[in-house]
Amino acid sequence: MANAVENKAHHVVVIGGGFGGLYAAKALSRNNNVNVTLIDKRNFHLFQPLLYQVATGTLSPADISSPLRSVLNHSQNTKVLMGEVVDVDTKEQKVILQNEAITYDSLIVATGVSHFYFGNEHWEKVAPGLKTVEDALEMRRKIFLAFEAAEKETDPEKRRAWLTFVVVGGGPTGVELAGAIAELAYTTLKKDFRNIDTSEAQILLLEGMDRILPPYAPELSAKAETSLTKLGVTVQTKTLVTNIADDIVTMRQGDSVEQLPAKTILWAAGVKASPMGKILAERTGAQLDRAGRVIVESDLSVAGHPNIYVVGDLANFSHQTGKPLPGVAPVAMQAGNYVATLIQQKLKGNGSVPFRYLDRGSLAVIGRNAAVVDLGFVKFSGILAWLTWVFVHIYFLIEYDNKLIVMLQWGWNYWTRNRGARLITGESLLTVNGEERISDRFASVNNKTTVNV
Amino acid sequence: MANAVENKAHHVVVIGGGFGGLYAAKALSRNNNVNVTLIDKRNFHLFQPLLYQVATGTLSPADISSPLRSVLNHSQNTKVLMGEVVDVDTKEQKVILQNEAITYDSLIVATGVSHFYFGNEHWEKVAPGLKTVEDALEMRRKIFLAFEAAEKETDPEKRRAWLTFVVVGGGPTGVELAGAIAELAYTTLKKDFRNIDTSEAQILLLEGMDRILPPYAPELSAKAETSLTKLGVTVQTKTLVTNIADDIVTMRQGDSVEQLPAKTILWAAGVKASPMGKILAERTGAQLDRAGRVIVESDLSVAGHPNIYVVGDLANFSHQTGKPLPGVAPVAMQAGNYVATLIQQKLKGNGSVPFRYLDRGSLAVIGRNAAVVDLGFVKFSGILAWLTWVFVHIYFLIEYDNKLIVMLQWGWNYWTRNRGARLITGESLLTVNGEERISDRFASVNNKTTVNV
Repeated sequence: MANAVENKAHHVVVIGGGFGGLYAAKALSRNNNVNVTLIDKRNFHLFQPLLYQVATGTLSPADISSPLRSVLNHSQNTKVLMGEVVDVDTKEQKVILQNEAITYDSLIVATGVSHFYFGNEHWEKVAPGLKTVEDALEMRRKIFLAFEAAEKETDPEKRRAWLTFVVVGGGPTGVELAGAIAELAYTTLKKDFRNIDTSEAQILLLEGMDRILPPYAPELSAKAETSLTKLGVTVQTKTLVTNIADDIVTMRQGDSVEQLPAKTILWAAGVKASPMGKILAERTGAQLDRAGRVIVESDLSVAGHPNIYVVGDLANFSHQTGKPLPGVAPVAMQAGNYVATLIQQKLKGNGSVPFRYLDRGSLAVIGRNAAVVDLGFVKFSGILAWLTWVFVHIYFLIEYDNKLIVMLQWGWNYWTRNRGARLITGESLLTVNGEERISDRFASVNNKTTVNV
Repeated sequence: MANAVENKAHHVVVIGGGFGGLYAAKALSRNNNVNVTLIDKRNFHLFQPLLYQVATGTLSPADISSPLRSVLNHSQNTKVLMGEVVDVDTKEQKVILQNEAITYDSLIVATGVSHFYFGNEHWEKVAPGLKTVEDALEMRRKIFLAFEAAEKETDPEKRRAWLTFVVVGGGPTGVELAGAIAELAYTTLKKDFRNIDTSEAQILLLEGMDRILPPYAPELSAKAETSLTKLGVTVQTKTLVTNIADDIVTMRQGDSVEQLPAKTILWAAGVKASPMGKILAERTGAQLDRAGRVIVESDLSVAGHPNIYVVGDLANFSHQTGKPLPGVAPVAMQAGNYVATLIQQKLKGNGSVPFRYLDRGSLAVIGRNAAVVDLGFVKFSGILAWLTWVFVHIYFLIEYDNKLIVMLQWGWNYWTRNRGARLITGESLLTVNGEERISDRFASVNNKTTVNV
């Protein structure tokens, strides 16, 4: 190496092991002039783009997760720390955890976002979102329990409510969820029940804008809607959810208000910055946008704090197009790599060039053989788009851990049209919105008050 | 079919979708003279013999589970009902669930067993057993969290306690757990930590009898002990646990009493009948043994109730050897098949022959390339035994659902010596016996009080 190794290496602390944080840590892993500490609440990196497949019973959580220690175990300059950052001391350059404080020279914050209910946070209990493994397993529980409850229900109206699935939000996650539930109801589960016909299930996808997949080209939105409709999904655009209560979704489309009884409501509509955004704002004076994301400089640093960077979904980077970059994995990966390079250049005394996101295109999958791909210079849909989607996801999945298993699982599911991972797990297995609580009259000795995943 | 189909088919109700219940239901699935209702609290059959691989991060729960509806969806005479039986009315021949009652002509009870702590039920909180998916995930959480906590601990004594794993009970489950944890500590995780040397971990296997695997031939017990010792496990026989409190295991070996600080204690020692045993005893006058299992007649029926049968771990069948048959999958499978045949023979007016268990042998795996096999006429150990174990488990796994994925996962893990399913999930991720509870000072909006699997 050109530079002599300093007595005390430059210490980079990375908070968050998602795409942004992990790519930054990996990009720094071969440089002996830096030491890296990656802090995460979880012991694994989660491939969030495939979380909807856990929620709908195709994959297991471990199939789309990689232990952070395992991904980084060859990086001798890197420590992984499982812990939660509760504060940052910018004067002392310290990150504060529950029981310890860690000094940094450079800090990369990549803690992402969680769901947002636009001021109706109480909806979360009945309309879960999809960000964590636990979220996905809760969705899975709700979806498969709904079919079980419908099978037992004798009242036709109530049965209809059990077989009504409402997905709120027509972005990629909402589209993928709605498509996967439609395939479940109309194909996978068709022969599994005796009292109900699962193909009577009603799957609604609600979107507030005038088309689904709003960031995509209009012709792809139209194609996605056609594919979803063919699958059996009812797509309703320009529709806002105004209330969710007592298993009834109230929605407004223009001037008409509709009330729909539905037992399963899934949230894919809004995101809100993780609490680190607020902490950073308090400690650095950084500006936050309405979603609580940190507005960053052109080099992804926080204004006035050139050694603190924000990457991934938590960052609002508007220097390129005037609008914030979208909260997708490729932006986070590129930002992580950029900051890693920048820190190393600065150590060599070099200046910085602004971050530029290279948009290689957008993908969304609707179902078996159906997807839309927008590469900018070319847009396409159908089976070719679906194969592109499969290839891209396998490619990125196997980057750090060999997830060939996922490919084989997909291959198997593709031919058999079956899904093996549809376990209803967790506590209160038979409790559906409190309706069927089982007495503990014959409670077994291993009953627990809480159950862990 | 020889007999004319009756106007009202004979209704067989099966409680429990484990090996006993599922094999009975499957054996009845082609007979149009019977209708079958299979009731289970869960929506899936669990391949319990491999549960220890979920607990130690090799497989995901879905890899060893099959949706009951999917297994039985071609059986037009069979209904699956997700529900919990809370009582049986033998006069009206009804099974009572929370919200409904189901009339039976024949009843097969196959609800199995849960852990037993010999009167120290409060040990369960600190020393979980291994019967359900949730149990396995809780064990997984404890095991991997222990290494994380050791990595953070600076006090050498406390660190040692975090790296001490005690498995109580030297039957197949205990042997398999201890072997798998040893492989984790001494191979899989070796390069993953920076502050600790995982090979300093201490893994104890405690057994009350004079040798591990007591039901096996003594030479196999000896070979299993040698293999475990080679893996790094300390095997202590003739040792009884007399107390578990404040992270200290008190054990007695002869006259000497030892106290060992250990943060991770896993229970593989005792079993106790599920609550259905007591219900049956109250309603039928059936005798229970000390573990609460139902003492059955030579045709697996309950005395005085020739149309009520008990199969699997819940049954105490002592007519063959004078001792109860062991609580293993092959006994349950054969009993399920036997009762299914018996019911059909009775419908034809034929008499019954007593149940006879055909013991095809016993298997236990210790680790990579190490297992013991006892086929009665021949006993062997080592790599050949290990291959036999792999073959037998794959064979039975793929019987109802194609679990080739498991074989591929094993193949992959075998060559890489890695384990991908080591997620720490569930609530209170950073809480280890209440020591490191994270403040909710910066709680995110999606904090939940309970988390489902």
